[in-house]
Amino acid sequence: MEDIGIVGVGQSNFSRRCSISIKELAFEAFKEAMDGLEIANKDIGASIICSSLYDKQRSAENPIAEYLGLNPRPTFLIENACAASSTGLRVAWSLIKSGLHKIVAVVGIEKMSGQTSREAAEMMGRAYDITWESSFGLTMPAGYAMHARAHMAKYATTEEQLAKVRVKNSYYSVKNPKAAYQKALSLEEILDSMPVSLPLKMLDCCANADGASCIILAEGDIAKEITRIPIWISGLGAASNTGVARRESFTSLVCAKEAANQAYSMAGVDPRDIDVAEVHDCFTIAEIMAYEDLGFAKQGEGPRLIEERETYLEGKIPVNVDGGLLCKGHPIGATGGSQIRTIVMQLRGEAGEVQVKDAEIGLVHNIGGIGHYANVTILRR
Amino acid sequence: MEDIGIVGVGQSNFSRRCSISIKELAFEAFKEAMDGLEIANKDIGASIICSSLYDKQRSAENPIAEYLGLNPRPTFLIENACAASSTGLRVAWSLIKSGLHKIVAVVGIEKMSGQTSREAAEMMGRAYDITWESSFGLTMPAGYAMHARAHMAKYATTEEQLAKVRVKNSYYSVKNPKAAYQKALSLEEILDSMPVSLPLKMLDCCANADGASCIILAEGDIAKEITRIPIWISGLGAASNTGVARRESFTSLVCAKEAANQAYSMAGVDPRDIDVAEVHDCFTIAEIMAYEDLGFAKQGEGPRLIEERETYLEGKIPVNVDGGLLCKGHPIGATGGSQIRTIVMQLRGEAGEVQVKDAEIGLVHNIGGIGHYANVTILRR
Repeated sequence: MEDIGIVGVGQSNFSRRCSISIKELAFEAFKEAMDGLEIANKDIGASIICSSLYDKQRSAENPIAEYLGLNPRPTFLIENACAASSTGLRVAWSLIKSGLHKIVAVVGIEKMSGQTSREAAEMMGRAYDITWESSFGLTMPAGYAMHARAHMAKYATTEEQLAKVRVKNSYYSVKNPKAAYQKALSLEEILDSMPVSLPLKMLDCCANADGASCIILAEGDIAKEITRIPIWISGLGAASNTGVARRESFTSLVCAKEAANQAYSMAGVDPRDIDVAEVHDCFTIAEIMAYEDLGFAKQGEGPRLIEERETYLEGKIPVNVDGGLLCKGHPIGATGGSQIRTIVMQLRGEAGEVQVKDAEIGLVHNIGGIGHYANVTILRR
Repeated sequence: MEDIGIVGVGQSNFSRRCSISIKELAFEAFKEAMDGLEIANKDIGASIICSSLYDKQRSAENPIAEYLGLNPRPTFLIENACAASSTGLRVAWSLIKSGLHKIVAVVGIEKMSGQTSREAAEMMGRAYDITWESSFGLTMPAGYAMHARAHMAKYATTEEQLAKVRVKNSYYSVKNPKAAYQKALSLEEILDSMPVSLPLKMLDCCANADGASCIILAEGDIAKEITRIPIWISGLGAASNTGVARRESFTSLVCAKEAANQAYSMAGVDPRDIDVAEVHDCFTIAEIMAYEDLGFAKQGEGPRLIEERETYLEGKIPVNVDGGLLCKGHPIGATGGSQIRTIVMQLRGEAGEVQVKDAEIGLVHNIGGIGHYANVTILRR
């Protein structure tokens, strides 16, 4: 199945980028992805723009594609909440596999600073069912706080264990020049931070950001020609979940489990084969649930993994050694692409100080909404 | 290439549907598409929701997919202005062709009545480049009026010829119980209607509407099993265009020409082989340009086609005999799916009073924005 490769990855700095347009932001990521590739813009057969469009520009795919020099090739936009750009990767894979295109660019983009925090929170609220969820006051932190409470009640998970996820991710954030927050935090700083939706405090939560990512995929033979080290797409899994109100369990995300099973099965590997992973740590509890949903730990044993430092670089499965969403910031549509970029750099051996030695197989876990959508992608050198 | 079939099509009534939610609206189309199909909801491997989200619900794919009983299968949203649901068809085709899924549902949806006309016009304006286009007052009718003026200047096209497109489409609209406007109009009524952006008058323009469409696609062997008359996807073409300000020519839509060439080439047919067509008549001039861009008439000779009634049922190439966007109304994300439904019904021989005799090959031309995006799809019985 490994006949489609990732040939280019790029990312803008993630932070508050008030002064530039989404077109310029997209260009930063696109330029990095194209650097060193032996192709011209006209060789890209289609582009997929992935975004929740917090910016005022609607139908952003045409202004962006034209700015990147990708006209007159087809372009369209995919929205899938925070999972948009990994869904973009899945669709791009299909467009190539089906024979419609040979090279496809997936551009993730979000500019959230054009809205006040209150406006952005209101827009984000309308991403879940406006009849039964956001209208009753459900917010993103509140949804994940329910998951955290359930995990604490069933498995005696502690606030310290949650905070230790942020300690790890912030420890690595100082090595990532593109992260919005590059500062190692102490356990106390995290535990003492302002309550948001208890047990989640300010530093248990990722922050909005402006940013762009870009992934370029190519059909196998072309991939080998145009880049030095293509990274192969080995497993793809995707699933959705019910609205929050209708879930049977709050101790895991069933769609993530389902997506992981599909991806492992397609790649013919199991959790022990994964050398390095990026998981969707929009909140600290989300990373702990991901350990379990992906099979890195048994159900209920996720907290032990962080306690025992097994997800640090020296541990058995390094996770989010680029700082994660918690420290990079979370520009909705761009996040999945940023996670994929991190794993591609690891598998190429280009991850610098946070390189996982001899990494051969990597995994990306990208979630949309409060576990409404899940994509799991397995990549191989 | 004809190994993927359309097995089900559905459409809600298009009109002002203030009192129902987008979930209920989607269900009307989905139910019709599933009627008579020998499958259950759980057999649908993925759903694609196609919309520009004029409704307040953001990330509508999950609320809709859950309401339709399509969880926990993956679902995502495609936005591509007015071309969204034909782009959805293209992507669904790829998802099946690539082996990821066997049956995919494409749901087009738009609910525009929750906004005032002024709000909707403002949102629509932000669908083209907000830096260089809508900020200078460009609106959808103004964009197409520029195309109309250019065609009049170069080919001596008249306002009467434009109006005759609406005469034809309104003549057929009375046979379409799902159209928002079911009334035959006289040439005088159209010419005397209120100026909008001259030469385009009120009745040269389609109107906003609420509505949903649904297309269900299946892999070939399954298609033959689960439905009586599968309709095969024979040609697919897609392209984009620059922003309006940077176009070399205003007498045609270059992206439509390009998409048509791709589709004809993939299907191995030429314009003379097409028995019946649906074209994107968001404005009367758009249908005339479509005649030329699709090769039904030579460049500049589109007006003669309508003058000579060649696009009526008795003519050489019947076009928009369901009333077109002009009479059905234009619920952005749902329109492409409605066009596809019309052609599928024609090829199945189920078009009733507007049936084109022995129709074997049909074409759908679906445009986004002011010719920013184009999809051309060729279907075959």
